[in-house]
Amino acid sequence: MNETIAQLHERRSARAYTDEPVSAADERAILEAACQAPTAGNQQLYSIVVVRDQAEKDELAVTCDNQPFIATAPLVLVFCVDVRRWHQAFLAADAVPREPGVGDFLLALEDTAIAAQNAVVAAHSLGLGSCYIGDILERREEQARILGCPRYVVPAVMLVIGHPTEGQLRRVKPVRLPLEDIVFENRYETRDADRLLEDLRPKAPASRDLADWACAFCERKWNSDFSREMTRSAAAILADFATEAS
Amino acid sequence: MNETIAQLHERRSARAYTDEPVSAADERAILEAACQAPTAGNQQLYSIVVVRDQAEKDELAVTCDNQPFIATAPLVLVFCVDVRRWHQAFLAADAVPREPGVGDFLLALEDTAIAAQNAVVAAHSLGLGSCYIGDILERREEQARILGCPRYVVPAVMLVIGHPTEGQLRRVKPVRLPLEDIVFENRYETRDADRLLEDLRPKAPASRDLADWACAFCERKWNSDFSREMTRSAAAILADFATEAS
Repeated sequence: MNETIAQLHERRSARAYTDEPVSAADERAILEAACQAPTAGNQQLYSIVVVRDQAEKDELAVTCDNQPFIATAPLVLVFCVDVRRWHQAFLAADAVPREPGVGDFLLALEDTAIAAQNAVVAAHSLGLGSCYIGDILERREEQARILGCPRYVVPAVMLVIGHPTEGQLRRVKPVRLPLEDIVFENRYETRDADRLLEDLRPKAPASRDLADWACAFCERKWNSDFSREMTRSAAAILADFATEAS
Repeated sequence: MNETIAQLHERRSARAYTDEPVSAADERAILEAACQAPTAGNQQLYSIVVVRDQAEKDELAVTCDNQPFIATAPLVLVFCVDVRRWHQAFLAADAVPREPGVGDFLLALEDTAIAAQNAVVAAHSLGLGSCYIGDILERREEQARILGCPRYVVPAVMLVIGHPTEGQLRRVKPVRLPLEDIVFENRYETRDADRLLEDLRPKAPASRDLADWACAFCERKWNSDFSREMTRSAAAILADFATEAS
């Protein structure tokens, strides 16, 4: 295993950070690495907001499912899908672009997540810990207001970054499923429900009954208020984009 | 710049490959690295289809906007959003999960793209070239049929990988925008259309009039048939997911 791949294996989320700030040089290296990521048609369909203002961090800690560690994270990055940049530039050039559609949004969302993952890999290589905050997809109206995003700019991927505490460094990375349950040849293997539950056994604590654990996980995550809110918010995000090419 | 970050800067798309196959060991290393990527709640909301069958590669080369290099690529990976696995496992555990919604889909799409980017970084570290095929988001009905995907499993991110030709290694990486046009502090900077067009100047060939180039780009990409099809297809993908939490 080469050094880069070893780092991809090592990297796990860190949610507690020391007081040491992220240096300006490290921050710039992370942002540059993000912007060097592959991007559809070299379009860079994202913008990145670096949140430094403490009141704004405090507010995002609330709107992102009340997670106080966001407010104290040394570096907070919000990656926004940005379909506005090119659309507006086309208009300025007197082109006649169609209205941005849900296809543009999904492609740009992939671009955005890909750029963010480069930031995560770069941060890890610098000895920094990071954590994705999926909850940025919730409460889209408030997130857009806080971050000042106009139409066609959507806060979509969020990262908090800092020097991990000793405790975080000792954490064991959660186990991933074996490849044979994730990777298929030529065609997707449609497994029945009982098999799929059994497949999840490696993720359950050894002491727990598998079905009990799955039921508890379903209640805590899938049926949670934040998860329901994510679908409401996602529907509101998508409603801004055309569903037919005009 | 450390070695990992240097690799993130170096990496650019490669669309032509030598006849040398991707070794089984390299393929496994790429897939393992993908599955080690960060994933919401350790859920791994994706599956990966390795396409080996030549007839299937040929078909995907057509359904992904007629790009013949897909058919001859040594390694073809289709990353599918997989919201089915957990939903079915919950049912098998006698939980009462809500129907998968558009929020679940968007979060899983991020998970999927993040895993794919780990594959790209791993491939580059092994001396392999790769290219994202965004067109997998088009013609969703055909892609699902070809790959055998049931409801809640969506072909969403595609990678082709191989040993790059000498010509590909000599290609210059397309220029990225300066950070000051992508990264903002605390709030998104809503620039006017003329400024946004001007911002794109680094991406235009020096010999071209900027507005002419932008108009041509708009026609070739934004207003293209494949781009219109992507929005039709994306709307069909999204229609399978609930827009309200049941």
